[in-house]
Amino acid sequence: MDTPKTPFSGIKKDVRGRLQCYKQDWIRALGSGARILAPTAYIFFASALPVIAFGEQLNKDTDDTLSAVETLTSTAICGIIHALFGGQPLLILGVGEPTVIMYGYLYNFSKERPELGKEQFLAWAGWVCVWTAVMLCVLAILNACTLITRFTRVAGELFGMLISVLFMQEAIRGVISEFHIPEGEKDIKEEYQFHWLYTNGLFAVILAFGTLMTSMKSRGARSWPYGVGWLRGFIGDYGVPFMVLLWTAISYAKPTKVPHEVPRRLFCPLPWEAGSLSHWTVVKDMAKVPVIHIFTALIPALMIAALYFFDHSVAAQMAQQKEFNLKNPSAYHYDLLLLGFMTLICGMVGVPPSNGVIPQSPMHTRSLATLEKQLIRKKMVKCAKEGMKMEASSSEIYGRMHAGFVEMDPHPKSPVDKELEDLKEVVMNHEDGGESKGKFDPDKHIEDHIPVRVNEQRVTNLLQSFLVGSAVFAMPAIRKIPTSVLWGYFAYMSIDSLPGNQFWERLLLLLIPSGRRFKVYEGPHASYVESVPFKYIMMFTFFQLLYFLVCYGITWVPIGGILFPLPFFLLIPIREHILPKLFPHQHLQELDSSAYEEFIGEPVHNISLSRRVFEHGDEGSDEDDTDSYFDVSSTEILDEMITHRGELKLISSFNDRQFHIHPKNGDSMA
Amino acid sequence: MDTPKTPFSGIKKDVRGRLQCYKQDWIRALGSGARILAPTAYIFFASALPVIAFGEQLNKDTDDTLSAVETLTSTAICGIIHALFGGQPLLILGVGEPTVIMYGYLYNFSKERPELGKEQFLAWAGWVCVWTAVMLCVLAILNACTLITRFTRVAGELFGMLISVLFMQEAIRGVISEFHIPEGEKDIKEEYQFHWLYTNGLFAVILAFGTLMTSMKSRGARSWPYGVGWLRGFIGDYGVPFMVLLWTAISYAKPTKVPHEVPRRLFCPLPWEAGSLSHWTVVKDMAKVPVIHIFTALIPALMIAALYFFDHSVAAQMAQQKEFNLKNPSAYHYDLLLLGFMTLICGMVGVPPSNGVIPQSPMHTRSLATLEKQLIRKKMVKCAKEGMKMEASSSEIYGRMHAGFVEMDPHPKSPVDKELEDLKEVVMNHEDGGESKGKFDPDKHIEDHIPVRVNEQRVTNLLQSFLVGSAVFAMPAIRKIPTSVLWGYFAYMSIDSLPGNQFWERLLLLLIPSGRRFKVYEGPHASYVESVPFKYIMMFTFFQLLYFLVCYGITWVPIGGILFPLPFFLLIPIREHILPKLFPHQHLQELDSSAYEEFIGEPVHNISLSRRVFEHGDEGSDEDDTDSYFDVSSTEILDEMITHRGELKLISSFNDRQFHIHPKNGDSMA
Repeated sequence: MDTPKTPFSGIKKDVRGRLQCYKQDWIRALGSGARILAPTAYIFFASALPVIAFGEQLNKDTDDTLSAVETLTSTAICGIIHALFGGQPLLILGVGEPTVIMYGYLYNFSKERPELGKEQFLAWAGWVCVWTAVMLCVLAILNACTLITRFTRVAGELFGMLISVLFMQEAIRGVISEFHIPEGEKDIKEEYQFHWLYTNGLFAVILAFGTLMTSMKSRGARSWPYGVGWLRGFIGDYGVPFMVLLWTAISYAKPTKVPHEVPRRLFCPLPWEAGSLSHWTVVKDMAKVPVIHIFTALIPALMIAALYFFDHSVAAQMAQQKEFNLKNPSAYHYDLLLLGFMTLICGMVGVPPSNGVIPQSPMHTRSLATLEKQLIRKKMVKCAKEGMKMEASSSEIYGRMHAGFVEMDPHPKSPVDKELEDLKEVVMNHEDGGESKGKFDPDKHIEDHIPVRVNEQRVTNLLQSFLVGSAVFAMPAIRKIPTSVLWGYFAYMSIDSLPGNQFWERLLLLLIPSGRRFKVYEGPHASYVESVPFKYIMMFTFFQLLYFLVCYGITWVPIGGILFPLPFFLLIPIREHILPKLFPHQHLQELDSSAYEEFIGEPVHNISLSRRVFEHGDEGSDEDDTDSYFDVSSTEILDEMITHRGELKLISSFNDRQFHIHPKNGDSMA
Repeated sequence: MDTPKTPFSGIKKDVRGRLQCYKQDWIRALGSGARILAPTAYIFFASALPVIAFGEQLNKDTDDTLSAVETLTSTAICGIIHALFGGQPLLILGVGEPTVIMYGYLYNFSKERPELGKEQFLAWAGWVCVWTAVMLCVLAILNACTLITRFTRVAGELFGMLISVLFMQEAIRGVISEFHIPEGEKDIKEEYQFHWLYTNGLFAVILAFGTLMTSMKSRGARSWPYGVGWLRGFIGDYGVPFMVLLWTAISYAKPTKVPHEVPRRLFCPLPWEAGSLSHWTVVKDMAKVPVIHIFTALIPALMIAALYFFDHSVAAQMAQQKEFNLKNPSAYHYDLLLLGFMTLICGMVGVPPSNGVIPQSPMHTRSLATLEKQLIRKKMVKCAKEGMKMEASSSEIYGRMHAGFVEMDPHPKSPVDKELEDLKEVVMNHEDGGESKGKFDPDKHIEDHIPVRVNEQRVTNLLQSFLVGSAVFAMPAIRKIPTSVLWGYFAYMSIDSLPGNQFWERLLLLLIPSGRRFKVYEGPHASYVESVPFKYIMMFTFFQLLYFLVCYGITWVPIGGILFPLPFFLLIPIREHILPKLFPHQHLQELDSSAYEEFIGEPVHNISLSRRVFEHGDEGSDEDDTDSYFDVSSTEILDEMITHRGELKLISSFNDRQFHIHPKNGDSMA
């Protein structure tokens, strides 16, 4: 990406670029009609659920000062603003975990300062937002976004790992808390008698684990062999929110004798209750904040600004990965400026600010790509069929389809012809229908050859933000969710964020003895596993682990924890000046590459082994077991070829049928 | 198997055959020294745990008349007798689920008859055993075992499925019962107050699920990539008992305020308490049983005899599958006779009789095959090394190894030379060490070429029976196991017995839409999936399902349930006369073949699909989705190639490296 020097130049460029397609952003959406609602609903659930969970966490961390009401409100406000005025409408905004953690620290800080205290917390936080806003705007004006490229994978994944560990910590803390009386509560209430507390705790364990397990299962629904496509698709898309619903329902299946407050449910005041209404006057209170603390607010502001600068840009990056073939320009600088304004507003009304979120942003683009595909396909099939009705020649038919495609995708600059090449080929091939393929069938053949296009527009983002906003008024329903279900959801978010994090995958790799590494090669595996010597992989991982432990340790420091983002920014110089000294450049490139490269697995120890099972291998435990070959014990192979009933299978592959024997019944008894 | 006509001829043959190797059965064991203890311990845990669980079930079904003490005693007694005098020492005996169910029916029957009542239950059951014994002996004398071959897979798997469903039913009933006061107990005790009952229930759910989940995970330990061989092997072998131990320990991690009786633990009197001692006098009571009921005992006896005849022979069959290359002769007839005597004894002392069990019996043989392999290998390596020390020629070295092998495996008739052929080849090939293989290395090369031999002896069986017996005196420890852990174990047994049951696998197959069937072909799959038209697979499965529901229904009939084995024997004529009319012979052979044939999977929809993801497929939900090709939605493929963080992977296979791009950092942002 080019690095404009003069201030404002980045913003100017972004605005100019965006204005050209702004109108289009609205028109396109209308074109796709009701189908647009699918991605809308999808992204709404994907972003609303975590925001509610964070709300509950915030609620615990700030002694009920803030709750899901505020997080939802912030997400809605910022979402709407961004959808209307944002540079890159594919970007999804929301209150993120870093914000929640920061607000936790802010609360503890002001609580412990008599001159601030609980009451002044939001006002002081307001000042933090003001400073943050200023810094973000400055960064935007100075085109700082070009720096983002210097946060390499190592930093990003370290951060991701930290978040995921904090999620798990939250989940565990949450479940444990269910066994105890909430802070500040008296033990006079019935549900706080020992036996009901204990019951509540056990119940929480069940609900949390249930939510975790079922959510994890449902996530992979799309690749199940069972069930019809639309069902698998539905479970894959809405499985997790559905599970939250399901376990909430289950939580009501309890004898009437159990007190109504067991299990505990989400605590948050209704938006129209006094508790929530207090915020809107935060601006007034800000004046009351002691001057000294207006400046202490600078330090957290610095951290938050840095976090947002990093998070927001990365989220935008993810939403615009080049494999998506986006046509509209990016707008990093302008969006950062806008983020500044939004942060200001949030601070003023006393809600935690929002920023661009992962993975929702790329999920958004992805769902729009699928939608667009369906639309283009429909159009082209129509054109093709018209052509065939009037028995046009293949080239004519192709011509019509080409026209149809261009109509759907009016971007003169895009090299349509090149992209449609193989479709053309197909059409032509099928003309001389002599070959097996038979006649060209639009319904079947077109879809395989449509180049990727994303339905770039603002409506999905706008609608989902409105939905999030309306969720605030669904509070009475949301309050029925047991807290334990949310702890389970935290655990789910934690585990779900690990696959694809190469730091995590490398940690697992360390647990695999060399004799078993072939298992890694058999499955899909990151490219570095093959190209980088194991020694370096190990060194690099240990370095990262050590660094991670430091970062995690900082979060535990009472007040200093507020500096937890610092180490991530220190990583830039470390990555640029120290690591290259420790690792050969090529290997460092591989381990810290900007693209996630994966090899598909290839079976290493083949089935013939299994067929000769008894003749092969011995107990893995045997002392002679060298790395010189695969550490596969014969018992392990046996497990493959013996049914759980203890029956031996005749294993064979397609190409050696001779291996089939049809023993007459009772053979085996002779 | 040959079908001797004259009575006793079968038994005579078995005895004659066995006498020849009886002495050997003891000597061989000594030869293998301490190593023999590994399979002993393995098979002990594999057989003791279910027997304890069945004891608890029996305890519930017979209102504390019988318990784990009796089931363990019976297993020990019969095991020892069989180990000493049995025909086929590889066969493992134990109290099985069918016996437990039958005893449940027997108890209900006598309880409802005033002239019998609880008191006479064991005496009457004694008479049932007497009749059963008589019938078994008659069957043995008439060489009935030849009939066993007429129970085909369809019957066996139907029976297996029934047992597995009954296990699951037991597990569910058990967990539910934890929420209620046990029968016959007063609700005065503290732990029977509502809130502690409820706590006990919730606790039970956690323990049961914990046991189930962890046991299932640990079962597959051997194929994990992680951890060193011996550890994986250990978890694979002893994981389940270990989990029972673990969750028992966890069940003690509870606040002291919780009553001691929460969670509930195994109930059984100590063997030296009055409760258990009553039995030994059952013989006396048998005289008191009213004459009429001496004859009513005939009906259950008929059922049990049939069950045992079936179970015992099948277990023996499984332990002697021909892939094991057993050298000693089988002894079906004689073992059935012996089973008769053992049943008689059990009846006399008032414990439920034992019979041959699956999967323990094949597990036993399997573990002995691995043991033998280690021994032979050790010997041959030794010989080879001696040879090499004195720089003998390859042929000489081979000669020495051959001699060593024969020494370990003194069976003149076995075609050693043929079996050792490829080893010979290896040795010779390596002589002209020019090629890559390099020098012949006994440590590495021998083990790949040792033909399967089983360490056939009686010691493992005898020792494990003694261990089971001694477990009776470990009752104080066993009583610490929470009942809920056993319910979890029942669930585990149920689920664990399903894979490899083709009936179950076909039921799942019905849930896979045709468009997704390629997923089945990709993985390992039974041969019939390819050779039999789906229409017939469906018909056959529906027939089996219907028949299964009938069998299951019968078990619910109050007294008639005692007849539940009947339908299985009816299956013989049905299989022989009706099914052939409905299905083409060839297909029936495939669906009901005596051998379990499996094809290894071959990737059908290859990765190139994924690389062209966006150009391919559409939402599985799309209406045009025809079966004409694989039902793979683009979103599904996306899931494959997008990390959970939403990052797109560059997927490539080893052979198209050109696909590697190393985008400089930030590329994706341009």
